[in-house]
Amino acid sequence: MRTMQSDAKLIDVALGRAPGDLAIVNARLVNVYTGEILDGQSVCTSGAWIACVGEDVGHAIGPQTQVIDAAGATLIPGLIDGHAHLAWLFTAGEFLRHAARGGTTSIVTETLEVYPVAGLPGMLDFLASLADQPIRFFATAPSMVSISRAATGIDPADLRQLLARDEIVGLGESYWQAVAQHPEDYRLAFTDTRASRKTLEGHSAGARGIKLQAYLAYGISSCHEPIKADEVLERLRLGIYVMIREGSIRRDLAEIAAIRDMGVDSRRLILTTDGISPEDLLAMGYMEYLVQKAIDCEFDPVTAIQMATLNVAEHFGLDDRIGGIAPGKLADMVLIPDPRTIRATCVVSNGRIIARDGRLEASPRKHEFTAESLNSIRLAEPVGADDFSVPVPGHGSSATVRVIEMVTDLVTREVRLTLPVIGGMLAADPANDIVKIATIDRTNPPGRSFTGLIKGFGLRSGAVASSAAWDTTCIVVVGADETDMALCVNRIRELQGGAVVVDGGRVVAELPMPVFGIISEAPLETLIDQRRALREAISGLGVVFPDPMLTLITLTGGAIPYLRICEEGLVNLKDGLTMDLFCAEE
Amino acid sequence: MRTMQSDAKLIDVALGRAPGDLAIVNARLVNVYTGEILDGQSVCTSGAWIACVGEDVGHAIGPQTQVIDAAGATLIPGLIDGHAHLAWLFTAGEFLRHAARGGTTSIVTETLEVYPVAGLPGMLDFLASLADQPIRFFATAPSMVSISRAATGIDPADLRQLLARDEIVGLGESYWQAVAQHPEDYRLAFTDTRASRKTLEGHSAGARGIKLQAYLAYGISSCHEPIKADEVLERLRLGIYVMIREGSIRRDLAEIAAIRDMGVDSRRLILTTDGISPEDLLAMGYMEYLVQKAIDCEFDPVTAIQMATLNVAEHFGLDDRIGGIAPGKLADMVLIPDPRTIRATCVVSNGRIIARDGRLEASPRKHEFTAESLNSIRLAEPVGADDFSVPVPGHGSSATVRVIEMVTDLVTREVRLTLPVIGGMLAADPANDIVKIATIDRTNPPGRSFTGLIKGFGLRSGAVASSAAWDTTCIVVVGADETDMALCVNRIRELQGGAVVVDGGRVVAELPMPVFGIISEAPLETLIDQRRALREAISGLGVVFPDPMLTLITLTGGAIPYLRICEEGLVNLKDGLTMDLFCAEE
Repeated sequence: MRTMQSDAKLIDVALGRAPGDLAIVNARLVNVYTGEILDGQSVCTSGAWIACVGEDVGHAIGPQTQVIDAAGATLIPGLIDGHAHLAWLFTAGEFLRHAARGGTTSIVTETLEVYPVAGLPGMLDFLASLADQPIRFFATAPSMVSISRAATGIDPADLRQLLARDEIVGLGESYWQAVAQHPEDYRLAFTDTRASRKTLEGHSAGARGIKLQAYLAYGISSCHEPIKADEVLERLRLGIYVMIREGSIRRDLAEIAAIRDMGVDSRRLILTTDGISPEDLLAMGYMEYLVQKAIDCEFDPVTAIQMATLNVAEHFGLDDRIGGIAPGKLADMVLIPDPRTIRATCVVSNGRIIARDGRLEASPRKHEFTAESLNSIRLAEPVGADDFSVPVPGHGSSATVRVIEMVTDLVTREVRLTLPVIGGMLAADPANDIVKIATIDRTNPPGRSFTGLIKGFGLRSGAVASSAAWDTTCIVVVGADETDMALCVNRIRELQGGAVVVDGGRVVAELPMPVFGIISEAPLETLIDQRRALREAISGLGVVFPDPMLTLITLTGGAIPYLRICEEGLVNLKDGLTMDLFCAEE
Repeated sequence: MRTMQSDAKLIDVALGRAPGDLAIVNARLVNVYTGEILDGQSVCTSGAWIACVGEDVGHAIGPQTQVIDAAGATLIPGLIDGHAHLAWLFTAGEFLRHAARGGTTSIVTETLEVYPVAGLPGMLDFLASLADQPIRFFATAPSMVSISRAATGIDPADLRQLLARDEIVGLGESYWQAVAQHPEDYRLAFTDTRASRKTLEGHSAGARGIKLQAYLAYGISSCHEPIKADEVLERLRLGIYVMIREGSIRRDLAEIAAIRDMGVDSRRLILTTDGISPEDLLAMGYMEYLVQKAIDCEFDPVTAIQMATLNVAEHFGLDDRIGGIAPGKLADMVLIPDPRTIRATCVVSNGRIIARDGRLEASPRKHEFTAESLNSIRLAEPVGADDFSVPVPGHGSSATVRVIEMVTDLVTREVRLTLPVIGGMLAADPANDIVKIATIDRTNPPGRSFTGLIKGFGLRSGAVASSAAWDTTCIVVVGADETDMALCVNRIRELQGGAVVVDGGRVVAELPMPVFGIISEAPLETLIDQRRALREAISGLGVVFPDPMLTLITLTGGAIPYLRICEEGLVNLKDGLTMDLFCAEE
């Protein structure tokens, strides 16, 4: 944080009354404010800030100033990811070992994964884990969209406390269907966030026309969900920032790149990952990959760089401190070979050199999470196979139930099937790819559970479960065998979080996630191995989806159509109403 | 202010569940977000907000909806002046009678004129006078640059109270020389303003290179002082917003228009008046005149419109509510014949039609100022001619003194002259155009005064005074005769503020300014007559400057070089140090 004291030092350096700390001289500078590429430029810093920029900063260079001769290489502002999911899988420290070396110096992360399972104390512990790292984090407060009524909506007092914090830049993504179906759950949060002059991050996947406009009328200020250029154009015209997503959930840049030829002002276009997997991070890098790909997709290089720097900063009202290279801004800068080659040879963050030639030189800080954060699976007792029995009311030999049917690896639909009743209990039909799926709340309150059925998941035996599931406080488990399902859940309880595959009464693969039950503390390489082992184990049980864990954990989500499950029952996202397993007699 | 209730209504209209209030259909829409001009567009409002925009808003139109058929005319967002001086001459109500009919719907005003003479209570009364008007006002808190040490710097508690208010969007202009010379006076205000995420408005007239950068390094976010395109370019490259000034103080647009051909991103270019005189307002209009002139200077029409709408809103972080036509934004819209003809045929502000074809249809509210605001000339006693006598220390027959010499009508320099001493008192020399100038503090504390000399003002007899003088809490008076000077000041004391010309013991012209001693409550037409009478009266006394009142009142200012005067003495802006009248023996 700038103070009167740091201001005084900064001004002294700018005026040449005191020596700067770091000077980069003889660079081509990408000036994101004017859109120019300027040759023969130099920059000098004081502490974390830029003191001066121009053809000559010699007045600010003293004997102790570290001078880097760029020798004509290109200097760009540090890259910014405006919509990340850092409360997922990695710790920030581990993530940064790989993400910080490529030129990303600021990240705005969602927090929707933490708050439901760990509340405000967990949020604060999570935010603490982001502080004092080699690069800078901002976060959005969670808007708390969930198909579970119990997990919907953030507590107003918690939200106000979060909004008062400097690093909280807005309210996180609010899925438009949820807002349309249950506006009363979000209006106060929207009002409070607007009053704090912070952004309302949007999520308007598939919305168009009247419904899109009604959603945006709340004051929603961005969307990262368009998958085609015409969706981008519609949203830009409606005055919001559009984040073009190129990450592990989706890769939309190549398709959307057509927007470059539509003759529209690009100032509200942003590049974002929307989260990146360990595998993609290791293989491709982070924001530098997105900017490079935008250039490869024939965006003008300066425009591409603006889309990951100034535009993001302006969207969040952070351009007073980040997003460009200018006096008084934070000294976040990246040397690259030329404006078309986004390969960091030197990364400066907060005035410090943190990476050179792809090697990180600053150590991310390992955060010690609180005991509460490390003990978030609050199930008092182990579960048993019986807990997944579904008693059928009445005395019929069969019952008609709502079943989740997989349409793609992510999209589901509601089907109604009549299944046999054996001993008063509903029977699954693994032979016909109809198995049980259960959600067991681990927090809110612990122990509440709901068991249903899923068709087309592919599981021939065993069970698979995860305590990290989208938009929920539940452990989600799918199983062809109730005993294996119970073992899955109990192993997660022992691990205090994770993903587990069980077959024949034996754990065949697992990935511990002890932090909030959603984050691993393992090195990235271990995480990748564990994820591969999980994937292979699930495939071995018959599941053919490309990323079967993703398929599993999205079954509780509030954004992907249609039939979803939580501890309260089934929810068809078409109307957002909670339904019982059994169809009413018609 | 939007509430949960107004949100609900707005969304209902957007969805077609409730009828809108006002629809403008069949318009060419200037979409400032994308930079497009779109034909066949319609807009529908709910209360003060825009509910929907597009090719068809029929779903939102009911029997009670007022529908305006634009018949192909062009619809643009309401214009915004980002740097106005509303605490000067006019009341907001009177100003709006003329300013609101041309399409301006938001104004950001400085308040530096009010605070020094009326403190926080005066500020709050002034802000109250801006509220509930047909158009919307925002304001900056005063940074309090003054050549008077006693009037320098805003009280930190007052600043924090102001920054907490929604309509206060930043800290007002801080002249760069003052900041450079006395940084300790401004650092806390800059720190507090930055912490509130509001802007630091700049004033870097004439600064360049190292000094400019050192000033901007504080986090200064704009400047409205460039007079040439290269000055604009230098500032844009340094990451600030540049306001191109075209008002009554200066007209820089034609000269600066060369920036349009320099290939730079225009998103940080803004058009502003920096204040407009009653005469110019009546003759030319307000922001619509500036946009038209930008187009006439060959700016692209959409760019010109962006420079008075979206760009201004983004600079102040107000683009969540103003600056463009989109769902959820305030319904501020202007119908004009075509994108190149900025002549308002219908002005909508806050969802209400306030003007048609140049006629105002909404009445500005007349604010009742407090008794304290109307009694700001706190001189306990009338002054006498003797109060302008300058006793000379020692017993010499002459004394060497620092004299303000007029170089142009606004620029002065310091000259040292040896003048006779008569009866122990310094003698002016009206025959050689050396007359007395005095500043009498009316507030802070009342009665402190300083008398000096001015050369080249042109006054052959009489005196002229004003309680509205730049950057000061003083009445400034220039006179060839001490008795006339005293009469000037005493008449201002009777009027509780104003400008007065006296000759031969008689008031020959006056302009009462009872509000804070700086604002008239007279109709604009009366004000113009009074200003003409003042001007003619001063010219009649020999002053040949084009606007002699402006020349007078800038003599206390902190921005125009070089030698200035206040109740504490003379100040040469080269170093900002306060000096006595008498030169030390060398």
